[in-house]
Amino acid sequence: MNFGVIGYGYWGPNVVRNLTTLEGSQVLMIADLSAAARQRAQRAYPSIHVTADPQDVVKSTKIDAVAVISPVWTHYELTKAALLNGKHVFVEKPFTSSAAQGEELIQLAESRNLKIMVDHTFLFTGAVKKISQLVDEGALGKLYYYDSTRVNLGLLQHDVNVLWDLAPHDLSIMDYIIKEDPEAVVATGEKHLNDFEDVAYMTLYFPGKTIAHINVNWLSPVKVRMTLIGGEKRMVVWNDLVADEKVRVYDRGVETTTQEGVYNLLVNYRSGDMYAPRLEQVEALQQELKYFNHCITTGQDPINDGRAGLRVVRMLEAASESLSKRGALVRL
Amino acid sequence: MNFGVIGYGYWGPNVVRNLTTLEGSQVLMIADLSAAARQRAQRAYPSIHVTADPQDVVKSTKIDAVAVISPVWTHYELTKAALLNGKHVFVEKPFTSSAAQGEELIQLAESRNLKIMVDHTFLFTGAVKKISQLVDEGALGKLYYYDSTRVNLGLLQHDVNVLWDLAPHDLSIMDYIIKEDPEAVVATGEKHLNDFEDVAYMTLYFPGKTIAHINVNWLSPVKVRMTLIGGEKRMVVWNDLVADEKVRVYDRGVETTTQEGVYNLLVNYRSGDMYAPRLEQVEALQQELKYFNHCITTGQDPINDGRAGLRVVRMLEAASESLSKRGALVRL
Amino acid sequence: MNFGVIGYGYWGPNVVRNLTTLEGSQVLMIADLSAAARQRAQRAYPSIHVTADPQDVVKSTKIDAVAVISPVWTHYELTKAALLNGKHVFVEKPFTSSAAQGEELIQLAESRNLKIMVDHTFLFTGAVKKISQLVDEGALGKLYYYDSTRVNLGLLQHDVNVLWDLAPHDLSIMDYIIKEDPEAVVATGEKHLNDFEDVAYMTLYFPGKTIAHINVNWLSPVKVRMTLIGGEKRMVVWNDLVADEKVRVYDRGVETTTQEGVYNLLVNYRSGDMYAPRLEQVEALQQELKYFNHCITTGQDPINDGRAGLRVVRMLEAASESLSKRGALVRL
Amino acid sequence: MNFGVIGYGYWGPNVVRNLTTLEGSQVLMIADLSAAARQRAQRAYPSIHVTADPQDVVKSTKIDAVAVISPVWTHYELTKAALLNGKHVFVEKPFTSSAAQGEELIQLAESRNLKIMVDHTFLFTGAVKKISQLVDEGALGKLYYYDSTRVNLGLLQHDVNVLWDLAPHDLSIMDYIIKEDPEAVVATGEKHLNDFEDVAYMTLYFPGKTIAHINVNWLSPVKVRMTLIGGEKRMVVWNDLVADEKVRVYDRGVETTTQEGVYNLLVNYRSGDMYAPRLEQVEALQQELKYFNHCITTGQDPINDGRAGLRVVRMLEAASESLSKRGALVRL
Repeated sequence: MNFGVIGYGYWGPNVVRNLTTLEGSQVLMIADLSAAARQRAQRAYPSIHVTADPQDVVKSTKIDAVAVISPVWTHYELTKAALLNGKHVFVEKPFTSSAAQGEELIQLAESRNLKIMVDHTFLFTGAVKKISQLVDEGALGKLYYYDSTRVNLGLLQHDVNVLWDLAPHDLSIMDYIIKEDPEAVVATGEKHLNDFEDVAYMTLYFPGKTIAHINVNWLSPVKVRMTLIGGEKRMVVWNDLVADEKVRVYDRGVETTTQEGVYNLLVNYRSGDMYAPRLEQVEALQQELKYFNHCITTGQDPINDGRAGLRVVRMLEAASESLSKRGALVRL
Repeated sequence: MNFGVIGYGYWGPNVVRNLTTLEGSQVLMIADLSAAARQRAQRAYPSIHVTADPQDVVKSTKIDAVAVISPVWTHYELTKAALLNGKHVFVEKPFTSSAAQGEELIQLAESRNLKIMVDHTFLFTGAVKKISQLVDEGALGKLYYYDSTRVNLGLLQHDVNVLWDLAPHDLSIMDYIIKEDPEAVVATGEKHLNDFEDVAYMTLYFPGKTIAHINVNWLSPVKVRMTLIGGEKRMVVWNDLVADEKVRVYDRGVETTTQEGVYNLLVNYRSGDMYAPRLEQVEALQQELKYFNHCITTGQDPINDGRAGLRVVRMLEAASESLSKRGALVRL
Repeated sequence: MNFGVIGYGYWGPNVVRNLTTLEGSQVLMIADLSAAARQRAQRAYPSIHVTADPQDVVKSTKIDAVAVISPVWTHYELTKAALLNGKHVFVEKPFTSSAAQGEELIQLAESRNLKIMVDHTFLFTGAVKKISQLVDEGALGKLYYYDSTRVNLGLLQHDVNVLWDLAPHDLSIMDYIIKEDPEAVVATGEKHLNDFEDVAYMTLYFPGKTIAHINVNWLSPVKVRMTLIGGEKRMVVWNDLVADEKVRVYDRGVETTTQEGVYNLLVNYRSGDMYAPRLEQVEALQQELKYFNHCITTGQDPINDGRAGLRVVRMLEAASESLSKRGALVRL
Repeated sequence: MNFGVIGYGYWGPNVVRNLTTLEGSQVLMIADLSAAARQRAQRAYPSIHVTADPQDVVKSTKIDAVAVISPVWTHYELTKAALLNGKHVFVEKPFTSSAAQGEELIQLAESRNLKIMVDHTFLFTGAVKKISQLVDEGALGKLYYYDSTRVNLGLLQHDVNVLWDLAPHDLSIMDYIIKEDPEAVVATGEKHLNDFEDVAYMTLYFPGKTIAHINVNWLSPVKVRMTLIGGEKRMVVWNDLVADEKVRVYDRGVETTTQEGVYNLLVNYRSGDMYAPRLEQVEALQQELKYFNHCITTGQDPINDGRAGLRVVRMLEAASESLSKRGALVRL
């Protein structure tokens, strides 16, 4: 599989490094508008053709698939150009700036029998795989809530608000784990520094009474990556910042009793052991790119295909609308 | 100062213990509807008169002040009876079940020159005192956000939702620290076990762009008591569950630059030292009750008077309304 | 069972509180040399006879058992007096100041059919019970090492070195868990403030290649209570300072392989799940005193009898000798 | 500066990567006995000459300096060959297998005016630089103790015991920070798996009453990298495994009082604020290699020269002797 990579900023070098070491794939071309980025790319990979013009990549006849690792507002245009030139596309998250763009790209890809994979990297981590497996096996029972905090000091994006920058991680993970579509969104937040919200909170209502909440913040003095998932039978705490025991499963839950009385509690709590399952130790991006190759070869639709990317974009769009109306409920 | 205490359940024994050891105050009577509670009280304090009837307390001519440590739905009636009988009142938080009740009680107390103190215990901890001092001194600069998480397994109250049970702590602390009134509230949440929300999220908008957020949850496998306060100059992380260094002050902040460009960040981040100030080691409830005696004696209005209690009740009422409308903005 | 308690300083009040609430036991007398301590005792327990003279306690004909909760250098004399007056004795750890004293007291108690219990409180905690159970069941396999760190700022004792003050906890736990007698001791340390070592390290060699190590320190800025226990099959980390999951069991171990070569590792490491068993939530001292009553009534020898206390004293004596010889091996 | 690198196993690739990106230095040759290692090296650096024979490196006339990144038992022979061929040498720690070897190499280097740098990488971390600065400024006051724990599951070396594998880190840091030579060593430990101790404890006595202790263990289920340094005025806790605030400085200490009495404490404890200074964020190895180039160019003796390496080897030799005598004091 011959790859072209557009964008060699923060994440692009990781994509190139993984593609070059992946059995059966190679990178033929790297494009970046920044001269400094091109210099870094050329020094690290003397044998790869480096260019300022993304058109060189999308039009190259030697290239089978393009990785679009550029700012979100360029995704639509670059992905479209790549698809029109018959390339499969691996595109950074969030998929597009709007649901309409995403729909158009999905249709285009399907009509040309091309694959889109959106880079929802976390789905390929040992932690998310394990949590998803626990949910699928019913180990947690009915899901009560999904509550994620993703805060740190400093923004990575300056052309979108903190929801579009940080929440795609949580939304793609939530979408993968819960396997039900939320029906409505409420988002609140505030702008302190410029025209984009730097602190935001998002609630998602699901039909089956699961509730999800996402707390994202660019102005936190400390970095937090913590997700709590509450189920009827068991509960999970996922702390992505610790070296070991990232995922902890608590044998804790709730049992409602039928006997009722004004002064009697209707609810009992169970508290048992906790265990931290051993997680697969893999580089998630390596696995994801290998899987992309596999999907192209076999024709299989990726779990993180354009439709998965579109679902996340729809939630972000709805959240932005709610945010601008200070928390008004927006149905999905 | 002679005290009567109504309610000897979970918190009542702490109030009695502190009042009995406090210089210049004594407990003459304890009332509780539960025979088991009365038995415990009598065994622990053989010399105190224990009764089933709260009327014995409010009508006793020997008693100067009554502590109402009973469920929230009884606060209005018991406080009113005590005030009508000329007693000062120390009442558990939240102050009342409605703002209207709170207003009536405040008026009644003022007309009779009696003091109401609402048990916002946290205001008397070393942690809150230190944070408040830092904010007042301007050490944090302009406040960006106040973000608190208060979750655990198990409910303490079965007649109110999780907001009315857990958020009064956060709202009273926030009210004390921020010293500005929020203008509107958005609340979301879900009921899983009975008719009361067990998971809830609350956003408060302030006129000056400070935003507050409170995450409360009775269904969390782990206990979290974490508050992040972000300011322009410095930021605070308060973790109330650690034995030492509960309050950490980060010399981190944001500097906006005037030079702008499409690809240039508008914002710079500063990251300096962190320090954990030594905190006063006191029992907060002891300090609070001492201060109550002091306020009665001197006629001073407590910082946690009926008006402070009322402000918290108004936020809770607004939050409940927003909750029932799935996040609709409710102005205060 | 009628108790007399000698010593109402730091730990005495806990012993009195537990004895008074224990079914079937009561405290008739408290002795302390300090007037302030006597005043505190009398105020808290108006109905108990409080005295300055321990002889009042040991000679009282109404008292069945005496709790000796005084400094270590008084244990021998007070315990002997109590035994000579026909009382059972519950005595603070370490049992005595020397092995010779301990031997004499054990003989005296046996000759008069009286029970001695040494207050090795930790044996009655949920954590130590669980660890001991895991070891007994063979869950850890052959034990490789027992490594404990017990450091903090501040000394509780000023008449003994840090080994005699802090290590009795570790030695009594180790003695209970390992169920094998160490054969030799090496101790190192240093005096910085007065004539007693304030920092000390102790290694104990066991016949079966288990090695134990204890790190005690009065000059640590942070409090640490951490024990690592390594076994062939599983390993335990016990952190006594965390609220939850104090005991963590790691499914990690070592497998030696028979194939050897200069460049081949002889050893493989296994790394599996971790789990934190739910621990019994009890007040250890309450359980211990209940068990003392039970042992007196039934004639059963306590697990923490005089012999257990003597084993700990022997290790301390040997350690002190090694310490004074700067690490010389002292056989037990 | 033209480099040759001998050894491309675990650490070698880091040395090569840093040398190739360092301004003014390049790697001309890499030698490794393992065909797999040579293949990895050649794939990563197509333009570097890769060889199986270290003699190619030491004898190359184009090479100015040799990095010896091979097992400890090869250090003497390879370093000697490099020096005899007029190369400066950067050699992995521990410097040599014996003090005699180290002395010979130092003399050889001095006689030929060549530099030896021993890879005590930690001296170039932000953490050690900050701690050393605090000690030098007198911020900690007189040093009471240096206590380090370095444990994990798994051995990196199979031809030496755990002291020679892990303790060189601690000894080189301690040597750099304390700036006084220890006068005697006591070491204890045990072999469980093969002929080398896998658990070991080391005490170092200093003339001025500072005491150092090092706890190293290959059989720990958890990784710990924790150093406590106690001074009269302040105390430091360095946890190298946390992402932020690795170094914490506690304004805690001890004040001895002159008034003495049998029942009065002779010692008072101070407990003030804690602060975590911002640390330099650099790759230590990058700084160290830059400094090596600087020392060669300017003729300056590195802080981590052969003499520093020799001091560490002497302590390891003494510790091994003590270990074999089960804790006997060995003078340095």
